[in-house]
Amino acid sequence: MKYPNSLEKLMKSFEVFPGIGPKTAERLALHVATKLTKENALSLSQAIEEVIQTLKKCQICGSISDTDVCEICQDTEREAILMVVENTKDVLSFEKTGIFHGRYHVLGGLISPLSGIGPEEIHLPKLHERVVKENIKEIILALSSTVSGEMTSLYICKMFEESPISVYRIGYGLPVGADIEYADEITLRKALEGRRKI
Amino acid sequence: MKYPNSLEKLMKSFEVFPGIGPKTAERLALHVATKLTKENALSLSQAIEEVIQTLKKCQICGSISDTDVCEICQDTEREAILMVVENTKDVLSFEKTGIFHGRYHVLGGLISPLSGIGPEEIHLPKLHERVVKENIKEIILALSSTVSGEMTSLYICKMFEESPISVYRIGYGLPVGADIEYADEITLRKALEGRRKI
Repeated sequence: MKYPNSLEKLMKSFEVFPGIGPKTAERLALHVATKLTKENALSLSQAIEEVIQTLKKCQICGSISDTDVCEICQDTEREAILMVVENTKDVLSFEKTGIFHGRYHVLGGLISPLSGIGPEEIHLPKLHERVVKENIKEIILALSSTVSGEMTSLYICKMFEESPISVYRIGYGLPVGADIEYADEITLRKALEGRRKI
Repeated sequence: MKYPNSLEKLMKSFEVFPGIGPKTAERLALHVATKLTKENALSLSQAIEEVIQTLKKCQICGSISDTDVCEICQDTEREAILMVVENTKDVLSFEKTGIFHGRYHVLGGLISPLSGIGPEEIHLPKLHERVVKENIKEIILALSSTVSGEMTSLYICKMFEESPISVYRIGYGLPVGADIEYADEITLRKALEGRRKI
């Protein structure tokens, strides 16, 4: 005995999500089949269709937007500082802090030769064009402190090596509230390298 | 700055699933918006609609099925033993073992007065009718060993107290491969109660 075909198909569809294995996919599909009201299930399926039909990438920064140019890129008051992030989620995280008033550039990925992702596969070629066109004086790299993140940061540094533009990276170190006892070696090394006089 | 409306709506739709909080819902919705191909996203939304449009409960056992009467209930070779389980997933788990050749009765929930779920809210009233109609001689209760599970088991025992039908429950105890050191007290007590001569 197996699950009905339509249920098996739904499980397979859920399995493509990151962090969702066969067991969770089964649980989600069964929840749709047995617990959701018809109304809720339909509104979920419509929400998915709406997302893929209405959302696009901002033509300037590459962030997710329902307009051709996103809200932030439309804002002419923004300073001529460009923060390079991996994805739209990171834009929201920095916007929540309320301390950055510049513009963003969303790469949509990181350079990773092992997965076949080179500079052309992410939103990098447009970065140079933007810097010239928008008269950017400063770039801040806010990428994860992983191998791919470091590689991408390095690549961008090289891109602007010969130009008068200052390229910064965000500070890496001990997160606020964290215990030194539980921090890993590399974080501690970064924290030491990033020490500041008080 | 906020996410576009359609994305926010999709996040809210994902949040109704069990075990999915706001953070995971955000991750899933962003995956739909940025990583899924249009094709995959559409096939997910269609799979959801198909599930709620084609699936129904088997008129006899209450299990999920794409026919009025499920495969197992259609099988006339099945023994006149009835196993009572909470949901369709449990049916599949027992079918996988290959050692049970009886029929199933899927409750679709457990009695839980605190959540306002009484015997009438689950597939219990039909149980008595089936037992008479199908000439069942033996009932096996395979419900979780939780407060609700115990309450439901007790209720079913009482239902057949006066009848000649034997009501069994599955054995509770130490799972195979588990370490006594890590087993909780109640499991160990159940294991002791369920001891067998070797």
